[in-house]
Amino acid sequence: MSKRKISIEDIARKAGVSHTTVSRALRDSPLISPKVREEIKQLAREMGYVPNGIAQSLQTQKTNTIGVVVTSIADPFFAEVVEGIEQIARSSGLSVLLSTSHRNVEQEIAAIDNFYRRRVDGILVADSRINTNHTQQIGQIATPTVFINSQTANQPESFHSVRIDDYLGARLAVQHLVSLGHTSIGYLGVGDRSLSNQLRQEGYQTVLSEANLPQIDDWIAIREEDNTRTSDVVTGQQMLPQLVKAGVTSVFCYNDMVAVGALLACKKLGISVPQDLSLVGFDGIALGGYITPPLTTIRQPMLEIGRVAMQMLLDLLQDKTVENRVLSPYLIERGSTARK
Amino acid sequence: MSKRKISIEDIARKAGVSHTTVSRALRDSPLISPKVREEIKQLAREMGYVPNGIAQSLQTQKTNTIGVVVTSIADPFFAEVVEGIEQIARSSGLSVLLSTSHRNVEQEIAAIDNFYRRRVDGILVADSRINTNHTQQIGQIATPTVFINSQTANQPESFHSVRIDDYLGARLAVQHLVSLGHTSIGYLGVGDRSLSNQLRQEGYQTVLSEANLPQIDDWIAIREEDNTRTSDVVTGQQMLPQLVKAGVTSVFCYNDMVAVGALLACKKLGISVPQDLSLVGFDGIALGGYITPPLTTIRQPMLEIGRVAMQMLLDLLQDKTVENRVLSPYLIERGSTARK
Repeated sequence: MSKRKISIEDIARKAGVSHTTVSRALRDSPLISPKVREEIKQLAREMGYVPNGIAQSLQTQKTNTIGVVVTSIADPFFAEVVEGIEQIARSSGLSVLLSTSHRNVEQEIAAIDNFYRRRVDGILVADSRINTNHTQQIGQIATPTVFINSQTANQPESFHSVRIDDYLGARLAVQHLVSLGHTSIGYLGVGDRSLSNQLRQEGYQTVLSEANLPQIDDWIAIREEDNTRTSDVVTGQQMLPQLVKAGVTSVFCYNDMVAVGALLACKKLGISVPQDLSLVGFDGIALGGYITPPLTTIRQPMLEIGRVAMQMLLDLLQDKTVENRVLSPYLIERGSTARK
Repeated sequence: MSKRKISIEDIARKAGVSHTTVSRALRDSPLISPKVREEIKQLAREMGYVPNGIAQSLQTQKTNTIGVVVTSIADPFFAEVVEGIEQIARSSGLSVLLSTSHRNVEQEIAAIDNFYRRRVDGILVADSRINTNHTQQIGQIATPTVFINSQTANQPESFHSVRIDDYLGARLAVQHLVSLGHTSIGYLGVGDRSLSNQLRQEGYQTVLSEANLPQIDDWIAIREEDNTRTSDVVTGQQMLPQLVKAGVTSVFCYNDMVAVGALLACKKLGISVPQDLSLVGFDGIALGGYITPPLTTIRQPMLEIGRVAMQMLLDLLQDKTVENRVLSPYLIERGSTARK
């Protein structure tokens, strides 16, 4: 795998013709006779020559490649979103390259910038932290870009976006608990996904208000943003006990991984789910169906989110007018919730 | 996000100087006076000019980017391997781009070729299907490449590789079951990962031979390769019943996801794990610790695999001599196995 790249010069030397002749022959230029063209192409094949994709794309200005920035490939949520992106991209003959941001705005901007400099045709960014303060850093990105479930309220207006209705999802989750007779309902959130956490917390609080249920400060536990990259499972494990102590009979968790952590904590504390405590997650990742009890959750249509975002990008590439989209999540009732 | 890219020509026109002068000024060429250089760079900044990464990399022949081909980002196994790759890449100032093969050799070759044409500095390929039959298609790839857990026995000799010792891992799994007193031990495998499945099956059979235990054809169930992309969980769910019917008291599963499926099948059939049936997985993904009972498994050092492969690639890039590496997995005893 370490042999030197064959250049046009190498072929020219071997063929005893000029660099220009080889270059023209390989590009099927009519300036070169068909016979010589064939001979040179044959020689190039024998020598193992591969055209330089970068030089080619400089000429055509098209790379037929889409860049996707995700937080991490360890997140099963984005795995399914990317599957949806790939389905649409494949059917349009586009390659997909992925890069990770690890929920860090500097890494995110570096990833976008790297894609831009490699001249991808379009960029998709999941869970973005970019806000109007970063306009200068990314203002020059002239590549069509669509944001998926962005985490900033003050996103630059020029951005296109697809997002899930976090507020609606939270309402569905908490209304489900209310309908089961729960009156002491907690919320276990994460501070490092500021916008979606805020919207889910608002949805939670609105339903409690509408149902005239008590709202107690100690029934809300938010893992504050820090630099330790605490996993969501650990967040759920560490923070569930304080909600139980505060007297809740049910908890709406920010997402399924947090709920998995909460469930592990319950097992350790000898708390039966759903008999002693009901748990609701958010996302609808496959894992939620494998655990015991299987998790009641608010399902985001992950494949659909990826497909819609990719289609929006294709429309932008064809200079069509696009409108930002908000998709609706829905409740999946399983074994982790029960009547109070 | 749709404004036109600013070119060197645009800057030259505005500045009233030649294209060459702008180009030289932006590259800090000493042929241009420091004052003019500064003026042109200032103008370029004001106009929102971004240097073309592709054109730059044509000059330097370096992109400071590594391409990684994985089967799918939905696989938690590769998520952790990629985390290891990124740790080492980041500390060396390299960007990582990912692409997916979906266990299809044509998609794999297309992904490698795409990386090669974009002039990445090095390539890592996980779960490769490439064998000596593909030498012509990828023979021209002159970019240093390292394969991780390749699935072909007749890999081209020029390839560098890091792999887990599948045979040893299988032996550890089955020896664990033998040590618990099991004498009817089944194997639940997958046909689409030919090499590692074969090595794990061999390890299984060798231990049974050594322990003078019965080897029954019906105690081995292999999901044959097909084009339906059946998930490993579904494979475990569908194939566990036939092993139970054949009378096994324990099953060594190809990997953790297959074991999760087997566990779901047991719940449906009213079979208690580990009281009625012991299950062992392979990989050591986080999920295995979240299910009930938590899964006994053979842990692959996933982070380490990624780190070693990336370090090998860095060594290749520095023209150091490298040797292929085989890493050892180890047993993690948890709740899914018990004394017969």
